Amino acid sequence: MENNQELQSLLDRTVAVCRSLTGDGRQATYIPELATVDPSLFSVSSATLGGALVSSGDTGARFSMQSMSKVMSLSFALEKFGYDEVFSHVGMEPCSEPFNSIMKLEMTSSTPLNPFINSGSIVIAGLIAGRIGAGAMEEMLDFASRMTGSKNGLAVNERVYMSESSTADRNRALAYFMRSSGTLSFEVEKSLDLYFRLCSIEVGTDDLAVMGATLANAGVNPLTGERLTSVDTSYTVTGIMSVCGLYDESGWFAVKAGIPAKSGVSGGIVCAVPGRMGLAVFSPPLGKGGNSVAGVEAVSRLSMELKLRGM
Amino acid sequence: MENNQELQSLLDRTVAVCRSLTGDGRQATYIPELATVDPSLFSVSSATLGGALVSSGDTGARFSMQSMSKVMSLSFALEKFGYDEVFSHVGMEPCSEPFNSIMKLEMTSSTPLNPFINSGSIVIAGLIAGRIGAGAMEEMLDFASRMTGSKNGLAVNERVYMSESSTADRNRALAYFMRSSGTLSFEVEKSLDLYFRLCSIEVGTDDLAVMGATLANAGVNPLTGERLTSVDTSYTVTGIMSVCGLYDESGWFAVKAGIPAKSGVSGGIVCAVPGRMGLAVFSPPLGKGGNSVAGVEAVSRLSMELKLRGM
Amino acid sequence: MENNQELQSLLDRTVAVCRSLTGDGRQATYIPELATVDPSLFSVSSATLGGALVSSGDTGARFSMQSMSKVMSLSFALEKFGYDEVFSHVGMEPCSEPFNSIMKLEMTSSTPLNPFINSGSIVIAGLIAGRIGAGAMEEMLDFASRMTGSKNGLAVNERVYMSESSTADRNRALAYFMRSSGTLSFEVEKSLDLYFRLCSIEVGTDDLAVMGATLANAGVNPLTGERLTSVDTSYTVTGIMSVCGLYDESGWFAVKAGIPAKSGVSGGIVCAVPGRMGLAVFSPPLGKGGNSVAGVEAVSRLSMELKLRGM
Amino acid sequence: MENNQELQSLLDRTVAVCRSLTGDGRQATYIPELATVDPSLFSVSSATLGGALVSSGDTGARFSMQSMSKVMSLSFALEKFGYDEVFSHVGMEPCSEPFNSIMKLEMTSSTPLNPFINSGSIVIAGLIAGRIGAGAMEEMLDFASRMTGSKNGLAVNERVYMSESSTADRNRALAYFMRSSGTLSFEVEKSLDLYFRLCSIEVGTDDLAVMGATLANAGVNPLTGERLTSVDTSYTVTGIMSVCGLYDESGWFAVKAGIPAKSGVSGGIVCAVPGRMGLAVFSPPLGKGGNSVAGVEAVSRLSMELKLRGM
Repeated sequence: MENNQELQSLLDRTVAVCRSLTGDGRQATYIPELATVDPSLFSVSSATLGGALVSSGDTGARFSMQSMSKVMSLSFALEKFGYDEVFSHVGMEPCSEPFNSIMKLEMTSSTPLNPFINSGSIVIAGLIAGRIGAGAMEEMLDFASRMTGSKNGLAVNERVYMSESSTADRNRALAYFMRSSGTLSFEVEKSLDLYFRLCSIEVGTDDLAVMGATLANAGVNPLTGERLTSVDTSYTVTGIMSVCGLYDESGWFAVKAGIPAKSGVSGGIVCAVPGRMGLAVFSPPLGKGGNSVAGVEAVSRLSMELKLRGM
Repeated sequence: MENNQELQSLLDRTVAVCRSLTGDGRQATYIPELATVDPSLFSVSSATLGGALVSSGDTGARFSMQSMSKVMSLSFALEKFGYDEVFSHVGMEPCSEPFNSIMKLEMTSSTPLNPFINSGSIVIAGLIAGRIGAGAMEEMLDFASRMTGSKNGLAVNERVYMSESSTADRNRALAYFMRSSGTLSFEVEKSLDLYFRLCSIEVGTDDLAVMGATLANAGVNPLTGERLTSVDTSYTVTGIMSVCGLYDESGWFAVKAGIPAKSGVSGGIVCAVPGRMGLAVFSPPLGKGGNSVAGVEAVSRLSMELKLRGM
Repeated sequence: MENNQELQSLLDRTVAVCRSLTGDGRQATYIPELATVDPSLFSVSSATLGGALVSSGDTGARFSMQSMSKVMSLSFALEKFGYDEVFSHVGMEPCSEPFNSIMKLEMTSSTPLNPFINSGSIVIAGLIAGRIGAGAMEEMLDFASRMTGSKNGLAVNERVYMSESSTADRNRALAYFMRSSGTLSFEVEKSLDLYFRLCSIEVGTDDLAVMGATLANAGVNPLTGERLTSVDTSYTVTGIMSVCGLYDESGWFAVKAGIPAKSGVSGGIVCAVPGRMGLAVFSPPLGKGGNSVAGVEAVSRLSMELKLRGM
Repeated sequence: MENNQELQSLLDRTVAVCRSLTGDGRQATYIPELATVDPSLFSVSSATLGGALVSSGDTGARFSMQSMSKVMSLSFALEKFGYDEVFSHVGMEPCSEPFNSIMKLEMTSSTPLNPFINSGSIVIAGLIAGRIGAGAMEEMLDFASRMTGSKNGLAVNERVYMSESSTADRNRALAYFMRSSGTLSFEVEKSLDLYFRLCSIEVGTDDLAVMGATLANAGVNPLTGERLTSVDTSYTVTGIMSVCGLYDESGWFAVKAGIPAKSGVSGGIVCAVPGRMGLAVFSPPLGKGGNSVAGVEAVSRLSMELKLRGM
């Protein structure tokens, strides 16, 4: 549907225009390692369902997945344990509270509202760690590598992992609270360990664009042809991305860009436009809502230019 | 893209299959007049961007818009007062609380989270009633008639209006609360009166399908060719529909059907699929979340068959 | 137990010292009529169980009871309808929320936490208005007059009543909300009308000191010898005063003064020290918590000097 | 004021009557070690300000202080660090939420409402542990021994301590949450360790009655004549006991018994009646609110018979 040269040209123009916005936000600092990244880095990648991978900007930049890993762990859990099992542990409704709200959790009988808030994703991590056991992280890395089409395989950035793990009082509070109410069925420290490792997987926008394209292509990686998830899982994951992908700015993003996406505090955004393409952007400075300022702008412009919302 | 005969045949099959589900829900009774409607009524309508109107079932059935009118009043307010003005009074984020939650309102500094919860819609009604004055309802009916392409014009069902108005303690509580905090800038009773009248406008699924198609067509009614809203307003309204259109089941609906929609307790659902079509369904029995049971099923099947989410 | 001359001398000294604090607070202005009172007025009264009434300062000053009327309406309701009936409508636990919080109400299944928050007192007023009918206000005035030992009888300040009634959006919200959930069993406007009239009853500190002494004397007015409430009712009312008498500063006041009391936004505080005396103070400027700044200081000093907390 | 023989006779009658109520409640089981205690144990002790210690029932029974230790750690912290320092870390207002509510904590800017809810007491323990260091527990045991007049000194029940420590997911959640927001200034595990040890100190009702009498006697242990706290600290601690001593039943207890008290889930209640006496009761079965059923009844009867509330 998209001509690759035109797409390349569009991405180049988008990078040129949006890079200037990187001064408007502020990098995340609560995980110390994130504060060390060069804030001027900017890259955009697009993976079409026809198998083309087009990108622009600092495409060699590597960054940790952070909350974008929640898309992958949800996909994995749905494939391994099934829809009914997964949604007996978490809900699938948007959340009007800050992303790591304990309050919200307690008010709703201790079941996390959806798999993209921290509490929900820790529950998913606990499910995976508890069921699969010692090999869980290896299996997750393999799944991630195949979903992103990474040739050499993905790996954890150990410094980010150490940084996450040692500054995690709030996530620890969430996990102990859920453990006390029976929501988290596996051990706290082992569940958190998997959760932190998943957040610390290092990627580039090319990887994320292919990951998005896999979901947009009903579960089949368009570059490798491998089926990673069922059609239903792709519906479920993109559906949840469309209502709760950008923390407390999910509604605003639905108005502005109108496509399923998931952001991370490292400054990345991964998008999956069903039937059209995967899209990813990276720019570290974040706005108040915890989303990449230049990244949101770039995605919105591309959505408009490519009529990604259907009009 | 859609052949009208195939579409007719698909709607007929959908009605045949889903009509049997009307026994699974329960009609709304808190507005007494709603309880008097025949629960077995069922109709589906589709309006293509090419200008075709295809429908099936009890297409002559008339029902009140209820919360579906919030799509219309938001569109009207955006056109009249502009994006900045409207969103200085309400937010655009999804809400994880029951639709008429006072608690949520108070916890968020008294600004309603979005224009589709009761508090938000009362604020919009107050804005319209306060700015336009005596002729507000007439102007709204005219706007609604043009948006739905209704030939004879739409009108309020007076019995429903009386019923709404006399069983409205909770909406009155919301309005007085917002008045006390300055969120509602116009008189309580006049704001509520317009709100109740808008909820009581009587429509059929054909009207709603055209209304959806107008939004899906970037603001231009595809049957009459008249522009009702700007392109930006159509993005804004469909964006908000996609994250908060089905009360506390908006996430579940995004997974199941994946298209922008707004439901009402009368049992109707209006959908706007950008670049594709408008869709509407009517079946009074509601599930726990306040949404038409057979209606959600019908929309989900049509979304799947017509690949409305893009895949 | 107290020598009246020594008591007179103590009150005079207290007035002399505490009057200087009237500049530290700010008068309530949300009821416009309250803002017109002279902020420098200051009076203290004490009624012993031996029947002596000792007072000092601007003892002729008259002011509206405001929330202090809640002590009286609770006493009346307990006598008329009994403990079980009253506490089937309201709780008796302290409240950690602002005094007119709707949120708190909703989160606790819509039963007000205690009879001293607005919602609880409106429910009590609705109970009285609904059960007694047209003569309710007359009967309440008679009860109040006998409880305070007022010779000429107490009366409503009509200007305060009008002011209350016309600036009551928040109380109206509370009442409609409770009506919608079935907590308020009587008509909203009639319940509120009695509530506003009770708040507008005009008194002086002498009246309040006798009212406190009646409760401190196990229900018998020590000046007239008339029994107004049962012993149990006096326990119940003073018990609730001790844990929730000063809005969000009830704990702080328990530390500072350590005696059962109830404050009102007019600047009055009525105290009932079981087995010892009634005490009342009036000084309009309020602190952040809505309690009279100089009044709290005066009561604390008198509690210390007279060893009212038992040590 | 009280004749010791009459007091002995009253306590004997109270034990005889109230022991029959031990079948009405249920022992705490969330700390496994608590479930092993004989539920029929019952004892009452009273320590007068004249230095008499009168008791009845199973006075040899030993049990862990649990939340009653919060009275002691608050007293200690006030003496060591001062009123201003302590109340910069916790509030002193009653709490209308369950005793270990994380939600309440978060909604109030993460400062615990008072020192008797778990979060507040963990903050106090963290303050003590952090400031005093390695010898903190020894110093606390010494303070407790002198406050209770225990001749041989008090000690931790190690099995209860192990049991507490290993079933503490919820307290761990609270502590990590407060650590993340800066409310808990010391290390989580060390703060919790002191907190659990304090809860596990073993006492009998005689010890607690003397502890209560020390507070009731303005800080001087009436048996030993030793001053343990300042007069102001005794006001502060008894004031907070009167508004938040019995979890969510503090208001009900103020109505029923009307004296400052603190309960623990081991089934004990310690009371401090300023200027009168200390009182303590032990009976393991708890009511819904977490307070000893027979214990509350016994204290209420004694309050009535001895006119402890002043009438």
